[in-house]
Amino acid sequence: MFEQLGLIGCGLMGGSFALALKRAGLVKRVVGYSKSPTTTEKARQMGVIDLAAPSALLAVAGADIVIVAVPVSATEATLKAIKHLVTPEMLIMDVGSTKTDVVAAARTALRDQIGSFVPAHPIAGKEVAGIEHADADLYRGKQVILTPLEKTLTVHLQKAAAVWGALGAQVLHMSPERHDAAFAAVSHLPHLLAFAFINGIAAQADGADYLALGGPGFRDFSRIAASDPKVWRDILLTNRDELLAQTRHFKAALSEFEAQLEAGQGEALESLIDRANQVRAPWRLAGPRPTK
Amino acid sequence: MFEQLGLIGCGLMGGSFALALKRAGLVKRVVGYSKSPTTTEKARQMGVIDLAAPSALLAVAGADIVIVAVPVSATEATLKAIKHLVTPEMLIMDVGSTKTDVVAAARTALRDQIGSFVPAHPIAGKEVAGIEHADADLYRGKQVILTPLEKTLTVHLQKAAAVWGALGAQVLHMSPERHDAAFAAVSHLPHLLAFAFINGIAAQADGADYLALGGPGFRDFSRIAASDPKVWRDILLTNRDELLAQTRHFKAALSEFEAQLEAGQGEALESLIDRANQVRAPWRLAGPRPTK
Repeated sequence: MFEQLGLIGCGLMGGSFALALKRAGLVKRVVGYSKSPTTTEKARQMGVIDLAAPSALLAVAGADIVIVAVPVSATEATLKAIKHLVTPEMLIMDVGSTKTDVVAAARTALRDQIGSFVPAHPIAGKEVAGIEHADADLYRGKQVILTPLEKTLTVHLQKAAAVWGALGAQVLHMSPERHDAAFAAVSHLPHLLAFAFINGIAAQADGADYLALGGPGFRDFSRIAASDPKVWRDILLTNRDELLAQTRHFKAALSEFEAQLEAGQGEALESLIDRANQVRAPWRLAGPRPTK
Repeated sequence: MFEQLGLIGCGLMGGSFALALKRAGLVKRVVGYSKSPTTTEKARQMGVIDLAAPSALLAVAGADIVIVAVPVSATEATLKAIKHLVTPEMLIMDVGSTKTDVVAAARTALRDQIGSFVPAHPIAGKEVAGIEHADADLYRGKQVILTPLEKTLTVHLQKAAAVWGALGAQVLHMSPERHDAAFAAVSHLPHLLAFAFINGIAAQADGADYLALGGPGFRDFSRIAASDPKVWRDILLTNRDELLAQTRHFKAALSEFEAQLEAGQGEALESLIDRANQVRAPWRLAGPRPTK
């Protein structure tokens, strides 16, 4: 399907994309670049990339598909750095967790080449970062959101949908604004809550003792608190308006629980828990979409 | 090791204990009782119990080990119901998630037979309840906290530790008060936060659409929001003072994040995330205990 993938950012997300594309037989060559030469070299040794490029620009030279897998705050600079070699035939995607800012960065950086760009957000990840955790199966059975601009060329949007579909992902289309509102709720907020949860315990004199007693519920609930600080600083800051709106919804819901606890109202408390149970129990990963 | 187990409450926790004890060859017979005859009959058909008793009292008759696996609010009534047939040779345990209240209930109900009682809290569970999910491996590799009273007979405490150890669990001893403070932090608080998190999203007009986009991070973070409403109503209410103290710690930690988000302070935000990452990344289930 593709001759050459230009991979910019040899980390978990980008490395997994390259591995998956190779394994599916969808690309002949992968040329990779990372800011750290050690990382690029590791990606080459692991067989994630075939050739190490000395710059982002040179990773793009001759590619018919490019994936920009850098922290969201570095998107604009990266796109500016490669603009000179972008062609109308080239499909360019990112993998960022926020989309309004990525779209704005792409408009500024790519200008007349913007038609090549298809903003993408694969809903996949691990709490560990780095090329050493790259996994050809990372995107299988997961959702990938594409948030095309008005000027995105249809041919690229279709290719983007086809390539993620071929990697086993379920592809959805959405506006960048709607994407960011939704992911503030289901991704950025739980990360924020998990970080605050751990910090709130660790700040207590007996916090370390308490933490040692955590069971499977604690393990799963707090897993995302181990996420990469730089990556998540960018995501939370970039989407802070939507995120702060979500913390208000959350705090209102928490206050309801606290009020019933303080009042000792067992029935009301049970009905609040039951509401959460009724919503969460039937939920499935990449399950059926609401009909609305 | 034991002749006869009296199982009161044929649910996930009690059923799993009976299955594990049988598989380990540690008991010859299991006599079971549940409030619902349908449940007792299902437990018999599944081979979790060998004989269905028509009352809690009769489930205890002739037993040398008894496990009371009922919602914590039913502990006192259950212990009162069996008291007449409790003997000094009998080991009685519960599996409740709170301990101060269970100890108080046991003192009131068992009086001069209190020496037989070893309060136990296995840190294990599933977000699904009921005998049909009983699992002989539920306690393997998990922690079990024993919170003995001053009058608990040493022989029973040792037997209790030995039996959980034989099922593959790691056994710890703790005071009931310390237990409840610790589990308010690492278990009851995350359940409360997960319930409020789901309710806060579900209350929004677009909540159902948002929820359909949740990924693996959402899945794990919110898994415990599907927990049993009656069981968790009891736990949260019973331990509400410690729990409300923990929500205060949590809200203070959350406010720190919100302040840095509002101020757009990337460095400070990153250092808050990094603090959570440093604590959570090396954490392991039933891992090494703090030396303090």
